[in-house]
Amino acid sequence: MMIVMQEGATPEQIAAVVARIERAGAKAHVSSGEFVTVIGAIGDDRELIAALDIEGEGGVEKVVPILKPYKLVSKDFRGAGATFEIGGRRIGGDNFCLIAGPCTVESRKQTLDTADVVNGIGVTMLRGGAYKPRSSPYTFQGLGKEALEILAEARERTGLPIVTEVMDVRQIEDVVGVADVIQIGARNMQNFDLLKEIGHTDLGVLLKRGMSATMEEWLLSAEYIAHGGNERIMLCERGIRTFETQAYRSTLDLGVIPAVKQVSGLPVIVDPSHAAGKRDLILPMARAAVAAGADGLIVEVHPSPETALCDGPQALYADTFAAWVADVKRVIDVMGKVIAGTEPATVAG
Amino acid sequence: MMIVMQEGATPEQIAAVVARIERAGAKAHVSSGEFVTVIGAIGDDRELIAALDIEGEGGVEKVVPILKPYKLVSKDFRGAGATFEIGGRRIGGDNFCLIAGPCTVESRKQTLDTADVVNGIGVTMLRGGAYKPRSSPYTFQGLGKEALEILAEARERTGLPIVTEVMDVRQIEDVVGVADVIQIGARNMQNFDLLKEIGHTDLGVLLKRGMSATMEEWLLSAEYIAHGGNERIMLCERGIRTFETQAYRSTLDLGVIPAVKQVSGLPVIVDPSHAAGKRDLILPMARAAVAAGADGLIVEVHPSPETALCDGPQALYADTFAAWVADVKRVIDVMGKVIAGTEPATVAG
Amino acid sequence: MMIVMQEGATPEQIAAVVARIERAGAKAHVSSGEFVTVIGAIGDDRELIAALDIEGEGGVEKVVPILKPYKLVSKDFRGAGATFEIGGRRIGGDNFCLIAGPCTVESRKQTLDTADVVNGIGVTMLRGGAYKPRSSPYTFQGLGKEALEILAEARERTGLPIVTEVMDVRQIEDVVGVADVIQIGARNMQNFDLLKEIGHTDLGVLLKRGMSATMEEWLLSAEYIAHGGNERIMLCERGIRTFETQAYRSTLDLGVIPAVKQVSGLPVIVDPSHAAGKRDLILPMARAAVAAGADGLIVEVHPSPETALCDGPQALYADTFAAWVADVKRVIDVMGKVIAGTEPATVAG
Amino acid sequence: MMIVMQEGATPEQIAAVVARIERAGAKAHVSSGEFVTVIGAIGDDRELIAALDIEGEGGVEKVVPILKPYKLVSKDFRGAGATFEIGGRRIGGDNFCLIAGPCTVESRKQTLDTADVVNGIGVTMLRGGAYKPRSSPYTFQGLGKEALEILAEARERTGLPIVTEVMDVRQIEDVVGVADVIQIGARNMQNFDLLKEIGHTDLGVLLKRGMSATMEEWLLSAEYIAHGGNERIMLCERGIRTFETQAYRSTLDLGVIPAVKQVSGLPVIVDPSHAAGKRDLILPMARAAVAAGADGLIVEVHPSPETALCDGPQALYADTFAAWVADVKRVIDVMGKVIAGTEPATVAG
Repeated sequence: MMIVMQEGATPEQIAAVVARIERAGAKAHVSSGEFVTVIGAIGDDRELIAALDIEGEGGVEKVVPILKPYKLVSKDFRGAGATFEIGGRRIGGDNFCLIAGPCTVESRKQTLDTADVVNGIGVTMLRGGAYKPRSSPYTFQGLGKEALEILAEARERTGLPIVTEVMDVRQIEDVVGVADVIQIGARNMQNFDLLKEIGHTDLGVLLKRGMSATMEEWLLSAEYIAHGGNERIMLCERGIRTFETQAYRSTLDLGVIPAVKQVSGLPVIVDPSHAAGKRDLILPMARAAVAAGADGLIVEVHPSPETALCDGPQALYADTFAAWVADVKRVIDVMGKVIAGTEPATVAG
Repeated sequence: MMIVMQEGATPEQIAAVVARIERAGAKAHVSSGEFVTVIGAIGDDRELIAALDIEGEGGVEKVVPILKPYKLVSKDFRGAGATFEIGGRRIGGDNFCLIAGPCTVESRKQTLDTADVVNGIGVTMLRGGAYKPRSSPYTFQGLGKEALEILAEARERTGLPIVTEVMDVRQIEDVVGVADVIQIGARNMQNFDLLKEIGHTDLGVLLKRGMSATMEEWLLSAEYIAHGGNERIMLCERGIRTFETQAYRSTLDLGVIPAVKQVSGLPVIVDPSHAAGKRDLILPMARAAVAAGADGLIVEVHPSPETALCDGPQALYADTFAAWVADVKRVIDVMGKVIAGTEPATVAG
Repeated sequence: MMIVMQEGATPEQIAAVVARIERAGAKAHVSSGEFVTVIGAIGDDRELIAALDIEGEGGVEKVVPILKPYKLVSKDFRGAGATFEIGGRRIGGDNFCLIAGPCTVESRKQTLDTADVVNGIGVTMLRGGAYKPRSSPYTFQGLGKEALEILAEARERTGLPIVTEVMDVRQIEDVVGVADVIQIGARNMQNFDLLKEIGHTDLGVLLKRGMSATMEEWLLSAEYIAHGGNERIMLCERGIRTFETQAYRSTLDLGVIPAVKQVSGLPVIVDPSHAAGKRDLILPMARAAVAAGADGLIVEVHPSPETALCDGPQALYADTFAAWVADVKRVIDVMGKVIAGTEPATVAG
Repeated sequence: MMIVMQEGATPEQIAAVVARIERAGAKAHVSSGEFVTVIGAIGDDRELIAALDIEGEGGVEKVVPILKPYKLVSKDFRGAGATFEIGGRRIGGDNFCLIAGPCTVESRKQTLDTADVVNGIGVTMLRGGAYKPRSSPYTFQGLGKEALEILAEARERTGLPIVTEVMDVRQIEDVVGVADVIQIGARNMQNFDLLKEIGHTDLGVLLKRGMSATMEEWLLSAEYIAHGGNERIMLCERGIRTFETQAYRSTLDLGVIPAVKQVSGLPVIVDPSHAAGKRDLILPMARAAVAAGADGLIVEVHPSPETALCDGPQALYADTFAAWVADVKRVIDVMGKVIAGTEPATVAG
């Protein structure tokens, strides 16, 4: 890493930085230009940044990391085309992961009906919420363990792997045995204790990007999970917060898909339902996500959105979902990918 | 429009709001609930909002407009599928508008060479900058009138309509006779005097969205132009500013494409080059823009990006541009659109 | 709450909204204007919004809540000048709460030395981190329980109430008996399970605002805590994320202080250290926070910032802290407040 | 400036960067570490960045400027405590610049009455808008030249220097002879042609910060003006756009005041009226601005805000303005400053 000193930094300030670098066990290389001095610290940036912590210190203009702060999730370490398996489905590469189901498990009937519909269409996994993060304490908070039992039944009945959200470390043991993939919501992307615990499980992980997180912070959160030993991580872009509040609910950042693929080997799933917030916007955004290179989609489907307990306006109708999938599939075809559904998964990587 | 009063607003405050509404020539309708009072102001919201200006006034909790603040550019007024013609090319509907050319006119040879290449591929229009908005006074500011002469020659040679940016009302008369489309840059989206003057010309307009503008502000700026009598306006999404600063240059907001089409009849062009800032990201973002429903793309092409005076890293190579277009065209085909190029334009609307 | 229908909403769409309102147990009041229809739903907004969930539904333009979504933390419910006591110190009203201490407990000596210094100056409480939220798994994560033992010793030695952060529900039982105030960090502002559990304790709470949270979301998180029965909540503004990344670390939002006091009775503490990220900026921002009406400050003090394991550049020097406090105190005096330190607390409310 | 190459950059890519640096007339210094290569470009960063333009080029990870991109407005060039005179008032140093008056000139009586009131209180300058930037074409756009005549009369009558906004280069000649200070609004901060023209005048300049501009972009816009020869520039912070839209109109960024003073010698004026958008919030924000180190305030005063044609809810009442100033003055006193009003200006610098 490099430390750029301010114009007019004193020899004492420069010496103090050098001393700190050496105290941290690294080598310092000072190069003084006409106006400013730049000090290189030769060592492992990931540890040096923490050990030095001198951004903002006297005489220091800025600290420039050279190496990326994450390692296990990087493309260099992991390889670009790495794929992995979850519940018999292969993720990444040419396999397109289509996850569908209700926002929230509201009842046995609503969940099993939806599961049957999406299974009949050949999706990759079934989603369904048992624990719901809600900004107000006065809104429906999910059915909890009752919902998990319903999801277990849906899994047994359809054979579909289950994706469900966990908000608290205490819920992890509840979902083990039911879920194949733990979803980490946007608000928990930097719930570090939760990330650590999930890193010790052998479940797949769907890590949603925080509402105002940078790509690097998102990858560092993935690194927390990988650091615990769990590397079957899917990144999930679900829209970021911007100044636009009327046109849609969140701004879907599709540019991050090719960008993250330049630096990380992790697959990227896109959630157009939450970003849109309105049913009519979901199809164009889903198509666009596929065209941008997404490895999958996660969407909400409901037999009767008008009576849904949560996020009805962004749920797709179960009875027209087949046509919806057919429309998106035209772009999946152009991208040379195949939905990893009931047909045997393409094995690659 | 409705005025929601604060809990505990006094009768005097309510009476004062009613008096203001009536002074503005509108009718007031007071409805008092258990906790709060809501006052409806019956009249033209567009004028009332300005005339009343009471957001934040004593006892007022919030002001809720009922009607949209723009009219001439709305779908209701203009129709959803309205198309128009620029330089013999039809814009909107099933016609895909592909605009390509150099970021900046650097020399006669660079411009004419690029014009020949893109013309041979069948693009819709030629872009080229004569006046360049640059954040630092120390960077290249464009060739100005010399560039306009070169563009005029390129137009005569290829027959391609010309798109070029204007930053100042004094430049408008320079571009009349050379340009078919005036581009308004993101930084000038709320340069209201410029918008008014352009509204009085008969040139097409490419109105870029401001870096942190909402959809409504963008449409209000278009309304300024339409208000002057000029309705041949293309909206251009070029990326907004978000917290992501490393992954790409700007966050391309593709969700705004279907959203704007729900409320306005104006065609939407996407500029993936400026948003990406890196050549490798332009193709996936261009494909995604098409899949999201864009009516066109504007991209930068250069015979030798390494020597470009401006934005070289985001310029596509002229000698591989045909293959690039072929790749994007596969998604244009899925969307049922045709590039409005040298072949006769599809006439619709 | 009011539902504004789109221009052109059909009678069926209007009837569907009315039916939903009635199904939710509320009354609907339809008022049709020349262009649009507005439907009032008479009932408790807090429950209706959740029960209806129709923002984005067919024919619905927008949903306008009339009542605030929080209640227990509102000024109407709680009173504007309500004060409460923590560890013998009164918070709110004319009492200024000065919290100081190390960012992180690094050692017994560093913590006790700092505690002695700040106690000698007459601060209100001692802060010190045992569990540290860090964006990278490779950085120092805090001493955990060892730190809590040191803090317990500092409390016994100085009599100062202790403020320490909790990131995970499992840590709550560890801090009970040590801490007087649980700090909830910005990244956990919407960790709803943590909020619920803390709502069931009888410790004071310092609730930091999320990095991109709105004031309303912040108050809803406070409402979660109050809903559990715990109303001794201090709001803490610590800077929000904006596009400015070089000038300082976060943008301190001082405008939110008088704004939050217009709607809520909760006291507001400001953390200028994290927002500044540079030592020289802390003093002007602390003074400004006081002048804006803050009820307290929380700052980091270290005997030797150069060797701090975390956030050294934003720590104030222990040996000049008395002068620092004297400077801020001039503005505290202008505001008519008194630091609630070793002198007997002013009793009010 | 330094170019950090990607891990795995090829020798050809490194050589290409070196060749570009040398073609630009600078010297390249290559230093290859274990993982990455860093290339230093020795020359004037301000010109090199433009000439090289290789951010995002093949093999380039990032470009790190070493020198600041502005020069004439920097503290190093200009000096920290530099003051200047406008209309007989000294700006900067210990002189506090209090600018007050109507948002918009609505009539001769309203303007002269307000001028008399604020002059009686001893303000530094009179503000008043003739040309108003409005986001909708349907709202009041200002009285234009008629307003300028009224302002000229107010100046003659009171002796107060006049501050008024210019939105278009064609308006500059109208205000010469009337205005002492040209205000550049937030939306025009990057209207580069306007900045250049104003740089050639000998009027003072009040440069508002763009709604989502960084500090560096703001200083670069000031540099445009200084580059034209005009160095009597006051920076004006008026609130930035953030996700908070209910609490106040814009987020006043007071942290930028001490931050900008660390790098630039320009005085900073704060506009709390536009940021607040509500009368009650203006006083605490004004006090906070002073405590953060502002060199002045610009506020809106109206004899009858309820009937104001523009921004009434954020106007202070003329008849209580003296008490308002007295309250703010207590913090001005703490900061050791004196309002540069009708008493002779303190001469410094």
